[in-house]
Amino acid sequence: MSLTHFDGAGQAHMVDVSDKPDTDRIAVAECHIRMLPDTLALIESGSAKKGDVLGIARLAGIMGAKKTSDLIPLCHPLPITKVTVDLVPDAALPGVRIEASVKTTGKTGVEMEALSAASTAALTVYDMCKAVDKAMEIGGLRVLLKDGGKSGRYEAAPDASPRGGEPA
Amino acid sequence: MSLTHFDGAGQAHMVDVSDKPDTDRIAVAECHIRMLPDTLALIESGSAKKGDVLGIARLAGIMGAKKTSDLIPLCHPLPITKVTVDLVPDAALPGVRIEASVKTTGKTGVEMEALSAASTAALTVYDMCKAVDKAMEIGGLRVLLKDGGKSGRYEAAPDASPRGGEPA
Amino acid sequence: MSLTHFDGAGQAHMVDVSDKPDTDRIAVAECHIRMLPDTLALIESGSAKKGDVLGIARLAGIMGAKKTSDLIPLCHPLPITKVTVDLVPDAALPGVRIEASVKTTGKTGVEMEALSAASTAALTVYDMCKAVDKAMEIGGLRVLLKDGGKSGRYEAAPDASPRGGEPA
Amino acid sequence: MSLTHFDGAGQAHMVDVSDKPDTDRIAVAECHIRMLPDTLALIESGSAKKGDVLGIARLAGIMGAKKTSDLIPLCHPLPITKVTVDLVPDAALPGVRIEASVKTTGKTGVEMEALSAASTAALTVYDMCKAVDKAMEIGGLRVLLKDGGKSGRYEAAPDASPRGGEPA
Amino acid sequence: MSLTHFDGAGQAHMVDVSDKPDTDRIAVAECHIRMLPDTLALIESGSAKKGDVLGIARLAGIMGAKKTSDLIPLCHPLPITKVTVDLVPDAALPGVRIEASVKTTGKTGVEMEALSAASTAALTVYDMCKAVDKAMEIGGLRVLLKDGGKSGRYEAAPDASPRGGEPA
Amino acid sequence: MSLTHFDGAGQAHMVDVSDKPDTDRIAVAECHIRMLPDTLALIESGSAKKGDVLGIARLAGIMGAKKTSDLIPLCHPLPITKVTVDLVPDAALPGVRIEASVKTTGKTGVEMEALSAASTAALTVYDMCKAVDKAMEIGGLRVLLKDGGKSGRYEAAPDASPRGGEPA
Repeated sequence: MSLTHFDGAGQAHMVDVSDKPDTDRIAVAECHIRMLPDTLALIESGSAKKGDVLGIARLAGIMGAKKTSDLIPLCHPLPITKVTVDLVPDAALPGVRIEASVKTTGKTGVEMEALSAASTAALTVYDMCKAVDKAMEIGGLRVLLKDGGKSGRYEAAPDASPRGGEPA
Repeated sequence: MSLTHFDGAGQAHMVDVSDKPDTDRIAVAECHIRMLPDTLALIESGSAKKGDVLGIARLAGIMGAKKTSDLIPLCHPLPITKVTVDLVPDAALPGVRIEASVKTTGKTGVEMEALSAASTAALTVYDMCKAVDKAMEIGGLRVLLKDGGKSGRYEAAPDASPRGGEPA
Repeated sequence: MSLTHFDGAGQAHMVDVSDKPDTDRIAVAECHIRMLPDTLALIESGSAKKGDVLGIARLAGIMGAKKTSDLIPLCHPLPITKVTVDLVPDAALPGVRIEASVKTTGKTGVEMEALSAASTAALTVYDMCKAVDKAMEIGGLRVLLKDGGKSGRYEAAPDASPRGGEPA
Repeated sequence: MSLTHFDGAGQAHMVDVSDKPDTDRIAVAECHIRMLPDTLALIESGSAKKGDVLGIARLAGIMGAKKTSDLIPLCHPLPITKVTVDLVPDAALPGVRIEASVKTTGKTGVEMEALSAASTAALTVYDMCKAVDKAMEIGGLRVLLKDGGKSGRYEAAPDASPRGGEPA
Repeated sequence: MSLTHFDGAGQAHMVDVSDKPDTDRIAVAECHIRMLPDTLALIESGSAKKGDVLGIARLAGIMGAKKTSDLIPLCHPLPITKVTVDLVPDAALPGVRIEASVKTTGKTGVEMEALSAASTAALTVYDMCKAVDKAMEIGGLRVLLKDGGKSGRYEAAPDASPRGGEPA
Repeated sequence: MSLTHFDGAGQAHMVDVSDKPDTDRIAVAECHIRMLPDTLALIESGSAKKGDVLGIARLAGIMGAKKTSDLIPLCHPLPITKVTVDLVPDAALPGVRIEASVKTTGKTGVEMEALSAASTAALTVYDMCKAVDKAMEIGGLRVLLKDGGKSGRYEAAPDASPRGGEPA
């Protein structure tokens, strides 16, 4: 077992995908941001009639997916064909649950794009609410689904708890 | 209590900081990435003599700090004066703990820069190890310290547990 | 009378502003995008409860201001301290009127940042509505106000008509 | 009739083009920038032997086309295969007429790339001449031609006047 | 004989490659950076156990390849499928020899990407060592190999000396 | 003697310049690109009346200076206040000599910005002429002058020959 981003001498490279066929690929990632109940209330009231925190975070996530190969050093640039980012308030956290889905037709997968989209959306929520709640925390950032390409389909276990008590 | 990124009509704007003085500012953020014990072993052996996952993630984190105002829509561009990113393997997770520290002399704080640096470093670890472990999970992304500027010093509670069972 | 972006031999350069003091500067720019009445109706209904075209265009405008020195070859990079972008439906056009305001404390003015913000917002409206109306047209892009720095205050004539019949 | 950039719940997304075939596409956009006769004279003399305003604006327009998906939030990244930008002095405006043409082989059209190229070229003319003429105005920014893809060929009406008195 | 980046009137454009087939392409470029023997010794000791200058420069080179179409005005954006950058200390220079190899499946070659990767790696070595040696010099930046596409295979002469005495 | 971009444990960081005063700084860098005599003749005829290779390379160099902190991983972002890039044909090379000068008022020097400007200009010449001459070679990239800041003034030796036979 070895890491594909290094050659035999341990030097980093961008993996050669030249001989891989262009196939349809999808990846879905999720994360959440926990906050004070009052902060969540402020976001929920805002979406209705004041400032649209979730709408802005959604857009930031979509744009973040497009910047992935600029952010992650060994990531291949890919022509993304679809991005959605959903942000759902969850009083039980309390906070916001975020899910990002990315598609492409290309030679490598789009997990990093989906993770970047979810992460950027969460960071944007933090930015917009930090004046009232500095202790917000982002967690549970993981790949839920990946399909397409030679390595086939991957689905995350339905519950992350075996890995450390993140809320379901 | 209201969100500063919206005006009275609820429209988003980049907050006016023109009249704030340039002061020295620092922010520190942390996160972690959990993985299989075998993945961590691979990283640790690599750091010694094969591929340097943690060194590459550190560099990605530093460069990520510089891209913050490009990623976060309402973030002010700031002339960063220092960035450090530390990545420490932690067998108890198992995984890697990441801490990013950013300084500037400017009109607004650098929490977002520190969070972006930590987050980008964690995503880069994911990218480099995903061929062997797709279930890695990034969590505990939060601000540990913020100082400088009118709102004064903020220090996170030493233990995040009151907010939901993240490992200390 | 000569153009400051060229030296004595006619070669382009980024003008030397090293010896200018940092002063507070503001610029305001405007433009409009004309469309079919049905397109405007779609935008207005969307703002209320479906898709928020104007909110997305506002955000794109704010981010566009931050990319100005990347877009305009001889523009100095500046630490922007404020951006607002207002988009107002105008049934008389019919279409949307856009006004962008940018501030900085720096050595050169922010007219280009204000123009880029307004222009990017208008292009984003076009992008979001082009599936239903390809004949939309962007016009009236000009500087309304510029203040700060040695060249002093500039205010546009209240009515652009002497220059060619743009609606007031 | 609805806007394709929003899903059923009114949330913005990058439209899924995964199932569209790669086809040859072209788009042409135009705009103009009006100025004082003396400003135009300065540009025309400069092109001949001093500073080359139009050459620099042409290059900025070409580079602007490449930045389109970075500027426009919901735009798909596309591998552009051709860009031309023509700038022609027009004493009747007085000012400069700009036409940009972009081609790609891809899943979506390149109208936004053509509009961005024309718009960036016009903004660059403004930047280079603003020291002598702050009242310049950019207008008539519209798509002239779009071809390729399922929606077929679109050609603008030869004269924009029905929409509000822009000069032909 | 004429330059392809200009049309018949001498105006720059991004060359139309729309009708070219997508073919496999590779390019290899090299350069070197000369320095004081003590500077090289510092790099070599650092690679072993202190700071990893060559590893950081390698990563910068890989990322530099991805920014090529952003840096070079008339360069087409291309979906790079592989990048490697090798940096080898050479006591005879004394300094570091750099070789970059880039692949794509596309309509144009990747010489510029290979040159940008090598050049960015060399500049990064300069940046990291400049506190101890400001007189370092970068040279010998040239294309070693180009293959794929209509113009066929190009291999540099094995020795650059006919062009001016660069060390072999 | 040690490299400032690494901490005591050999980990890379962006050096802390928070406590340095903002001072006026300048740096000048040079390089050259050698080519076939016919290629140079083509450039020289082009500058006069066909395509303006040197004008485009000059602009690319100026824009390259602005991208320096994006290209070089540990470089601080700086508000550049002036950039000039001069390109002079030299029949004795044969080829083009390039000199870039950059100024800022800031906490660190602008050597990297000057080197990036010169290097980007040279790469752009290569790009525009490569269809007729693939064997062009870029060399002699070095800092000529650096002034401002605590480390004082540095001037390169007037002749680079002690380091390896580059033409004066």
